[in-house]
This record gives sequence, C-alpha cells and structure tokens, in this order.
Amino acid sequence: MVDELLQNHPEQIEFIVIIEKYKDLKTIENLFVATDKEFQELSTLSTPDGILAVCKIQQTQLDLNSAKKIVLLNNISDPGNLGTIIRTANWFNVDYLLLTKNSVDCFNPKVVQASMGSLFRLPVIFIDDIEQLMQKLKNDNFTTIGLSLNGNPNPSLQTPEKLVLIFGSESHGIPNQIESQIDCLYKIPGNPQVESLNLSISAGIAMHQFFK
Amino acid sequence: MVDELLQNHPEQIEFIVIIEKYKDLKTIENLFVATDKEFQELSTLSTPDGILAVCKIQQTQLDLNSAKKIVLLNNISDPGNLGTIIRTANWFNVDYLLLTKNSVDCFNPKVVQASMGSLFRLPVIFIDDIEQLMQKLKNDNFTTIGLSLNGNPNPSLQTPEKLVLIFGSESHGIPNQIESQIDCLYKIPGNPQVESLNLSISAGIAMHQFFK
Repeated sequence: MVDELLQNHPEQIEFIVIIEKYKDLKTIENLFVATDKEFQELSTLSTPDGILAVCKIQQTQLDLNSAKKIVLLNNISDPGNLGTIIRTANWFNVDYLLLTKNSVDCFNPKVVQASMGSLFRLPVIFIDDIEQLMQKLKNDNFTTIGLSLNGNPNPSLQTPEKLVLIFGSESHGIPNQIESQIDCLYKIPGNPQVESLNLSISAGIAMHQFFK
Repeated sequence: MVDELLQNHPEQIEFIVIIEKYKDLKTIENLFVATDKEFQELSTLSTPDGILAVCKIQQTQLDLNSAKKIVLLNNISDPGNLGTIIRTANWFNVDYLLLTKNSVDCFNPKVVQASMGSLFRLPVIFIDDIEQLMQKLKNDNFTTIGLSLNGNPNPSLQTPEKLVLIFGSESHGIPNQIESQIDCLYKIPGNPQVESLNLSISAGIAMHQFFK
C-alpha cells in the first residue's frame, strides 16, 4: 500500500517510517528510521511489515450531478466488511461511497488494511441525514436499489444510468423508514435453509449485478 | 449456531457446555454447566457467548454421479475466507466443497464461526491429489471454470448442467499446471487500477453468476 501511495498519490503522504532493514529506501523525502521495538509501538498491526505512512485525510465534496454509481451504507459496524466493500466498490468503478455517521470509522486501521489501497482512490463521505440525502438523490434522477431479505429475487429493472445501491447493517438490515423510500428492494436468490449471506459478499454480488 | 444444531442436526452433538446464566436450558441431554472463568478457558473466542457444542466430524463420500455444483479450493490459507466461502456455497446450493490438503483446516475455529452453521449442512472434503481429481471430474462430464486474472471477462459459455468452480490461493491464484487443465478461465471485469478483489468476494460473484 505504501508503494502504491508513493507511485500514485505522493501528495497525500505526510511522512514515512521504516525499520533499519529497509535503509536503501532513503531517497524518499520525509523518511524516518525506527528500531524494530519502536516500530512495533508505532504500528497498529501485531506483525507489522516494517513500513508505514502517515497520510493526509482527503476532503471530497459530493457532486451528484456528475456521479453515476453510488454505494450507500447505513449503520454498518464491521471494519473488515467496510474495508472489503471499499475495495470492491473501487473495482466496479463506483464514484462515491456514502456512509451514515453511526457506521464504523472509515479510517479505522482494519478498514484501511482491508481496503488494500482503494481508500486512497475512492471518495468516502460521511452523511449526517440519510432521509435528506434520499430526497436529494431522487431530485438528481438516481434510481435506488436496496438489498433486503424482503426484496424481490427477480426485479424487472432496466439497469438505470444513475444508480445508488443501499446496504443496511450486518444484524438489522435497512431500517423500515428508509426501505419505504427505496425504488426497488432486491434479494439475492438462494437456499432458504441458509439465514443470510455475509454483508460484504452480498454487496459484491449486487455491485457485480448492477454496476458491471 | 448451537440452536440450529439442536433443531436440525442433534445427532452430530457430543455434548453442550453453558454458563450458569443459561441454566433454564437444562432439559437438553449431555449438558454441562461451567463457571464464567471455566467457560472462558474452554472457548476459543475472546468474548464467548456462554454456550458451546462439541460435535462429531461427519465423514462424507464424494459422489460425482449425483453432484451438479462443486466448488474446488486450491491451497487457500485465510480461515475467514474459507468460512465465508462455505456459507456462500451453501447459499447457492453447492453439493460439495473440495479442499486441497495444504489449505487451512475447515475445522479451524475461525472457519467454523465464519461459516455460520453452513459447515454442518455442506459436505467439505479434503483432496489428496488435485490432478487425479481433475481427470475424474472430466470423466464424470463436469465442465470446469477457474477464476484467474489471466481469464476472459466475457466467456461465451452456456451454463453447463454439471459445473465445478475452481479458486486458487489468496496470493498466488491457481497454479499453471492446474490452469492448463481447466475448460474456461474467467476474470471478473473491473477497474484496472485495482489489483484484485478479495478471494471470498470473487468466489461469491462467480457462484452467483454460474450457480444461480
């Protein structure tokens, strides 16, 4: 991830810390060398690789006019799921990932790690008021599809030009008051013996179905 | 998961351990009550729920004649990925999940947890010799599709009646000598800036595409 940052987003890097083993990287600006013990204390990983970057958090404005593909996550709590969804959304060329304020922080170290660099490429924006946002999306001609166990496994839907995919929390799904404002509720067809799919798997399947 | 075992697979349970708080479950056979401290020592979770079951491992014979949907995993190493793939395969009514012997153990506690009960419903079988298996699958009229970054994003393939989906390791994919024996290599189309998808996400998308 640090390598990719250096190549593609060097302007985001504040400084880099390495262990002595990587001293040949010393041509990089703003580089600090730490002992293994110091590095262990700095890193959030239990078995760190010996290189870390401290980066600026980018602020992005939401421009609904030019956007075509949006993912909206309501109150999701698992950092591994969020990181994986960011990586997958970036794979499917999503323009924005929107996140309600009560969700896990997208700069949580586990999210950053699971996103595999996609957090630096895909704008993630926190949303204060999801009901207001839903209204804005409609005004901007977005079609909304929500993943729900109450949904239709065979929605008769032409893939629209401007589309938002909405996913709810791991344990409670999308709240009723939001569900009622969504254009189409979709359920991935499957074995009724199995209670549900993992959230990031459902999100991956829905993105492939509607954004490919 | 214990609740589901009791309802659907009671014959697999050897015994159950609970903490004193759940004493009202005492009508269950082969039940032991533990103190919180004892339970903490018994459980593999850091914050256990207070109920655990010790179960028999089921032995299943592979019957290629009656099977139609098979997932084959070669040398996968992450227990969370394996558990999630077992859950997803069960959702898509897969008949067998085959696992090469050098993969992570399917009874690893993290696999059991991530499978969310699907490990008790979907037969998982370890494979000694993958090349011999590939030959057997061909003799039994299976079509093989392998997920590969060298694959075709638009394979022109009628969905066959008997199909095996093959996935390689998180870091190295499918080895060349296996890839050369696969009928069709498939790549999920996406943003070239993103190096890859998470393995369990790729597996979920491919299962939805070919097994739905």
